[in-house]
Amino acid sequence: MVMSKVWKLVRRPEGMPAAEDFALEQEELPPCGEGDIVTEALVLSVDPYLRYRARGLPLGSVMFGSQVARVIESKNSAWKVGSLMVHYQGWRTHTLITSKSLSAPSGENFGMQPLPDMEGLSNSLGLGILGMPGNTAYFGFLEICQPKAGETVLVNGAAGAVGSAVVQIAKIKGCKVVAFAGSDEKVAWVKELGADHCFNYKTTDVGKALTEAAPEGINCYFDNVGGQFTAEALPHMAEFGRISVCGAISTYNDDQRNIGPVGTRSPFNEGTVIWKQLRIEGFLVFRWDNRWLEGINQMKRWIIEGKLKYKETVSKGFENIPKAFIGLFHGENIGKAVVTV
Amino acid sequence: MVMSKVWKLVRRPEGMPAAEDFALEQEELPPCGEGDIVTEALVLSVDPYLRYRARGLPLGSVMFGSQVARVIESKNSAWKVGSLMVHYQGWRTHTLITSKSLSAPSGENFGMQPLPDMEGLSNSLGLGILGMPGNTAYFGFLEICQPKAGETVLVNGAAGAVGSAVVQIAKIKGCKVVAFAGSDEKVAWVKELGADHCFNYKTTDVGKALTEAAPEGINCYFDNVGGQFTAEALPHMAEFGRISVCGAISTYNDDQRNIGPVGTRSPFNEGTVIWKQLRIEGFLVFRWDNRWLEGINQMKRWIIEGKLKYKETVSKGFENIPKAFIGLFHGENIGKAVVTV
Repeated sequence: MVMSKVWKLVRRPEGMPAAEDFALEQEELPPCGEGDIVTEALVLSVDPYLRYRARGLPLGSVMFGSQVARVIESKNSAWKVGSLMVHYQGWRTHTLITSKSLSAPSGENFGMQPLPDMEGLSNSLGLGILGMPGNTAYFGFLEICQPKAGETVLVNGAAGAVGSAVVQIAKIKGCKVVAFAGSDEKVAWVKELGADHCFNYKTTDVGKALTEAAPEGINCYFDNVGGQFTAEALPHMAEFGRISVCGAISTYNDDQRNIGPVGTRSPFNEGTVIWKQLRIEGFLVFRWDNRWLEGINQMKRWIIEGKLKYKETVSKGFENIPKAFIGLFHGENIGKAVVTV
Repeated sequence: MVMSKVWKLVRRPEGMPAAEDFALEQEELPPCGEGDIVTEALVLSVDPYLRYRARGLPLGSVMFGSQVARVIESKNSAWKVGSLMVHYQGWRTHTLITSKSLSAPSGENFGMQPLPDMEGLSNSLGLGILGMPGNTAYFGFLEICQPKAGETVLVNGAAGAVGSAVVQIAKIKGCKVVAFAGSDEKVAWVKELGADHCFNYKTTDVGKALTEAAPEGINCYFDNVGGQFTAEALPHMAEFGRISVCGAISTYNDDQRNIGPVGTRSPFNEGTVIWKQLRIEGFLVFRWDNRWLEGINQMKRWIIEGKLKYKETVSKGFENIPKAFIGLFHGENIGKAVVTV
């Protein structure tokens, strides 16, 4: 009989998520049947997009999210006890993963897979630069923006897990990078990563900064933020600019935005889109499921070659997950935010 | 000495364009120098996008626009007297086109070129189905939406010059077409053109109509209208839907929209764009300048084969151009609006 601690969503977040939206409970796992496995969480991930998902998750559900976990019981020959995996079964210490779930097509698994060979790097990177956020940066930037050497790239949320990787990939590809982050400490780090310009959006006029830093116009814009930031950036796009819409963290706490059927409150002004001939594309990283290890392996090679740096903001203790999650919206993390059990 | 009648923009339109925004004047053309030609207008074009351009045109300028013209004087061996052309020198009866302008790269000429061989069809079609609006439909739909047989296509402004062509191209390509137009008469014509469904947007709940007519979701959306219509259509897009942003006529008279540096008043909600992985692209048809006759010739073949129909709303008299232009925003035209001199 395996007991699991779980964090449930018990109240619909309004505006900023709050501690009271979540409740820590215990539950007993069903028995491990033929073909099933049981895992134990080592590191859990908190990510901005979970705020968006919390809008639709039924109250009383375990909060959605990913973790690096170790197999502690197995009745499935493909998964040995002791092997490591990344799964998306939510904020829970122990998990029964059924044979049915293990054999589902990858698209239905939301990315469940063995942890890649870390070659001595921390397992927690499987939730960050060598996991979903890393591939989000790799594919979401390269495939959607199609950057060319010499082009100008705008990245916001540039000290975050995804943004900091995009900054560096853009530099590796020979682009000029103009970046924005939310504190002077973050700005300093993003400059260390090689950004040609980095501004603190809280103390800078975005439009004025772009006029000075990118008078030639922006060819590629990797957008993590959305809302007013994007409205101010849009007129600075160059003709035929490409916008990769990765996230819109500035809007996730605004329940009047990006939800429900109807609204004209987004920043992608039709006139600018038409006359500048812009291409705007949203994506979910699992569309590149079948190329997953291509991204991970390239990022790992760049890390080992010293071309790609990362930071983690590590919280300790399963009980601190909601706190770490809420902190994302107060700008508390640099790089990837994870929680070790 | 050649005298030309010209329509000048003398007052900045506010909201709907009005007769008082324009003034009819006479001007004397400069002499026809070496390499220059003089043309006489036969048919002039009025188009919704001119309202958008009127925001930036210096007051006192001749209104921008295209016409089919005949060469009446030539000191350029490439242009014989009597030959026909399409040029964009504005609302004027007579035009001096300089050698410099005639030899400029096509991109700087905004599409000036000989009238294609009409094979017995009306010359005025060079401003419509066999001109810029036709190629706007051909390339803007096929290249940007990349429709596949069996997919569902949404077209608004479907009784207009561009929209009516898109409806028919989509049917030729084997798609299901859901269309919207602005009167029952227009709706009846669009159905004649082969649309599977056509609704009068003035008397129909757009969202409800799409729920019923396209429960499978919209794969391709060719948008002439923008604004609230698009906000209502967006949640009905299918995953990986493509939106070709051709125009935004619903917004052109709203000077708070789509102009100036900053605003979050557009319909492309980031959340929907991300989670449905939509691709949105604006375009100007002259990006396909080097493939111009490919589009025209294909459209002409379809007309001759009876697969492509068109209508023109023809006004008579150079003095009626502003009236015809203003009528566009009151839904007065079916198909292409032109003015014969």
